[in-house]
Amino acid sequence: MTARRPRERGLTIEDVARAAGVSRQTISNALNAPHRLKAETLERVTALIEELGYRPDQSARSLKSGTRRIIAYPTPVDDPANPNPLMGGFLEAVVAAAGEAGYRILLVRPRPGQTHEQALDELIAARTVDGFLLSDILRDDPRVAHLAAEGFPFAAFGRTEPEHPQSWVDVDSVQAVTELVGLLAARGHRKVAFLASSSGQPWMDDRRDGFLAGVRRHSLAGQEFSVRGDEPGEIVAATRELLASRARPTAIVAAGDWLALGVYAAARAEGVEIGADLALVAFDDLPITAFLQPALTTVRLPLRRIAEALVSRLVRIVEDGVNPQAGLLLPGELVIRPSLGP
Amino acid sequence: MTARRPRERGLTIEDVARAAGVSRQTISNALNAPHRLKAETLERVTALIEELGYRPDQSARSLKSGTRRIIAYPTPVDDPANPNPLMGGFLEAVVAAAGEAGYRILLVRPRPGQTHEQALDELIAARTVDGFLLSDILRDDPRVAHLAAEGFPFAAFGRTEPEHPQSWVDVDSVQAVTELVGLLAARGHRKVAFLASSSGQPWMDDRRDGFLAGVRRHSLAGQEFSVRGDEPGEIVAATRELLASRARPTAIVAAGDWLALGVYAAARAEGVEIGADLALVAFDDLPITAFLQPALTTVRLPLRRIAEALVSRLVRIVEDGVNPQAGLLLPGELVIRPSLGP
Repeated sequence: MTARRPRERGLTIEDVARAAGVSRQTISNALNAPHRLKAETLERVTALIEELGYRPDQSARSLKSGTRRIIAYPTPVDDPANPNPLMGGFLEAVVAAAGEAGYRILLVRPRPGQTHEQALDELIAARTVDGFLLSDILRDDPRVAHLAAEGFPFAAFGRTEPEHPQSWVDVDSVQAVTELVGLLAARGHRKVAFLASSSGQPWMDDRRDGFLAGVRRHSLAGQEFSVRGDEPGEIVAATRELLASRARPTAIVAAGDWLALGVYAAARAEGVEIGADLALVAFDDLPITAFLQPALTTVRLPLRRIAEALVSRLVRIVEDGVNPQAGLLLPGELVIRPSLGP
Repeated sequence: MTARRPRERGLTIEDVARAAGVSRQTISNALNAPHRLKAETLERVTALIEELGYRPDQSARSLKSGTRRIIAYPTPVDDPANPNPLMGGFLEAVVAAAGEAGYRILLVRPRPGQTHEQALDELIAARTVDGFLLSDILRDDPRVAHLAAEGFPFAAFGRTEPEHPQSWVDVDSVQAVTELVGLLAARGHRKVAFLASSSGQPWMDDRRDGFLAGVRRHSLAGQEFSVRGDEPGEIVAATRELLASRARPTAIVAAGDWLALGVYAAARAEGVEIGADLALVAFDDLPITAFLQPALTTVRLPLRRIAEALVSRLVRIVEDGVNPQAGLLLPGELVIRPSLGP
């Protein structure tokens, strides 16, 4: 187990050619175009290649064929002590889908002092990657505009503007939240509230649109309350105020599970029992939501299907030069748990 | 924003040489060895390079200098719907540390039908990466043996056998769990139990060694009970049996937070109050443990320090050819929360 062989990494095609007493081109032909060689030459050279353990340099070959089978994923910055499970789950799904398609994922971030665009340019110029997979697409996302202008292959988890390539995949949040409101209406709720974070993220706006659509469809009394950021204390305070007010709803639709966690704490503080006095539904299906008491009704993102669709769209662009005509909306999956009530 | 520029990707060094009316070598010198050129030539060629927006092909340059500034990380398979937060947190820390050192992370897995060794060989042969960062090191890990035999740079989160390069970093689990037992002894506990999963993972054995060391040091009555895998039902059943028995301990040391979750469920079922009737301590500091009622006392892995040490060791091997003389043990951080009791 401790025997050390010489580093094969150092063996070049020239070394093999010299050892075989043939030209570099003959070795290359043996590997890439065997039909060009006489049978006896091919046999002799192949035997020597095997004997020496020579492995052709894939990076040089990739330079020629123009594909490295590497997809760059600009990964959002996270907290090692409390990583976002949606991000981790998405990455896992992407790695698996890319692997199926014969690609690997290179995690990229701007180097210190680089803009996002400069980081993209560096990778394009260095021909390190075949294309980009983007997530967390914002409105007028500069990365999308830049890659579109460069004509470089990309696919996006999140919608791109109509003037850009439509190589995006997204979850139909509007439809899913409309369905959540339908579940509440079917259980007799008339006064429902929507809890959002006023962050301006496009997916948050979609969820609000879904709430408003559901309220209209079922003629409910809908109200909205929002918090500025992700601060748990603020979420709890705003929810306690609502629960203590005369306008108290019988059901809350939280725009994300993280916001719903604050509703649990607020309900405990106000002596309100979730699943009995108050129905609570949310969005994301964070793993923790199954452990809550009572467990949370929420919407699961079809991460595997999203990743597979993104990779297959990107590979189509890279290998065939074919850009999709339209984006792809995938349905979210409602996960019914006791917080919805009986 | 929709203006399209020609793909700069297509511009080669030959194009620039032709436009400048000089040789390819002159362009290369302007970029890599400017001192070889006359000042007026350098000035003219540099101006043209900028005007054309030519960017040298980093992949070709890397081939020459032998470093791509890419580290391969063989990422364990995970569940997208419930990703392991330790894995996600570690990856985040690795990406950040590698970025600081000017490296990027390539996520690698064996292709369908490939062994782990074949996947490593493919990457070595293709010169895609400068080195490997391994995690979840098992005893006699075949990846370690293979990379050691190849003489290819790697660093390992988890100990390697003495006959292999000692480029590893690990958490001192023995010390941390010994300290946890010390905390229990200081609170008057005499009967303590250790809950483990009999999976044979080396880190589980370290935690057991820490428990036994603590029991000896403080002359406690220690018992062990173990479950076969990760199945929550089995963990709950085994713990209920212990809590209902005459041998019931006043404190449980769970080898991992995941096991501790089962203790919470078992305690609820048996009417035992954690933090009052039963002290509970564990290991890993999964994010969920702060939300438990009562919150869990556990050990936090110093993921940032681990990642920084691994990257710095690996970069030293890649760039300077210097292998560390010894592995590096880093302390875990005790996080005291109410499950420990008053």
